[in-house]
Amino acid sequence: MTYPLQPSFIKTVPDGDTHERAVCENCGFVNYQNPKIVVGSVVRHEGRFLMCRRAIEPRRGFWTIPAGYLELHETPEDGARREAFEEANAELTLKSLLAVYTVPRLSQVQLIYRATLASETFAAGEESLEVGLYERKDIPWDDIAFPTVLWALEHERMIEEEGAEAPFVNPPSGNPDGHLMR
Amino acid sequence: MTYPLQPSFIKTVPDGDTHERAVCENCGFVNYQNPKIVVGSVVRHEGRFLMCRRAIEPRRGFWTIPAGYLELHETPEDGARREAFEEANAELTLKSLLAVYTVPRLSQVQLIYRATLASETFAAGEESLEVGLYERKDIPWDDIAFPTVLWALEHERMIEEEGAEAPFVNPPSGNPDGHLMR
Repeated sequence: MTYPLQPSFIKTVPDGDTHERAVCENCGFVNYQNPKIVVGSVVRHEGRFLMCRRAIEPRRGFWTIPAGYLELHETPEDGARREAFEEANAELTLKSLLAVYTVPRLSQVQLIYRATLASETFAAGEESLEVGLYERKDIPWDDIAFPTVLWALEHERMIEEEGAEAPFVNPPSGNPDGHLMR
Repeated sequence: MTYPLQPSFIKTVPDGDTHERAVCENCGFVNYQNPKIVVGSVVRHEGRFLMCRRAIEPRRGFWTIPAGYLELHETPEDGARREAFEEANAELTLKSLLAVYTVPRLSQVQLIYRATLASETFAAGEESLEVGLYERKDIPWDDIAFPTVLWALEHERMIEEEGAEAPFVNPPSGNPDGHLMR
């Protein structure tokens, strides 16, 4: 589609508001922004991990777990299942909440679940170049798309090998082991 | 301020997208809308519960736990502490994640923490008519503002009295005890 104008947002405090917002110079539309929720899963099948190589920016060509933005009117669990289906044509059985991560710079809150494949069927979706099941040692560790993916894989390992308890939060800066209270 | 045009949004699926979005007919701006994140806490002090009587709509005059919308660039933990300070002038020590609730009708995801008062100081903030510490039996059970407040208080009880494990999710419809996997 084509449009007569381009969006043209300026930062200004709308009438009756207290904070600067992005307001369109053409029509006065106020683009209120809220933190975004990412939902995703560490997916296991016979011990292996379902990994997706991204076909889209950011970080095209790098590896991630199935994850994406929660939609309106969707539960986080439904969202996590939908993302795995969209990115890897995989049906999941969700088990429990692995972690609640925050990326304040991006105003993201991530809800990451532990899951298993409901069947062995999977295939690259439109947003993935390839998907595969990897033993832990064979995960493309040098080509992981985002820090939170590394955190999730490490927290899954801590549960498995150290009996750690979920849910975790961001690992460093005062929370070395990713627990809220310890 | 005045503007040459009015915002004029139509529902359409943008190129490369999978869902209908609100797109401005004038400039093609896509108004992606996201679910909103509510952060809050069940706050204990010497066994009692910190409860706030709402001074604002919705549910003015009814009782709630300190909770509100997460701001941009804020961690959920910081948001939960901020809300307790705004609504009850209370400083919290967060302990762990109690629950992740969803209200799909409102596109809300709620992250509710277990917390204690860092000091005995508290007082009604601008959004509260009154705040107080209540024994469980004295909580104004008939005047609770939202179902999720009841869920959180019940889940806190299940941890305390039944040794149940957090985090919980919405209680009913297939999840009678509010656990994801059981």
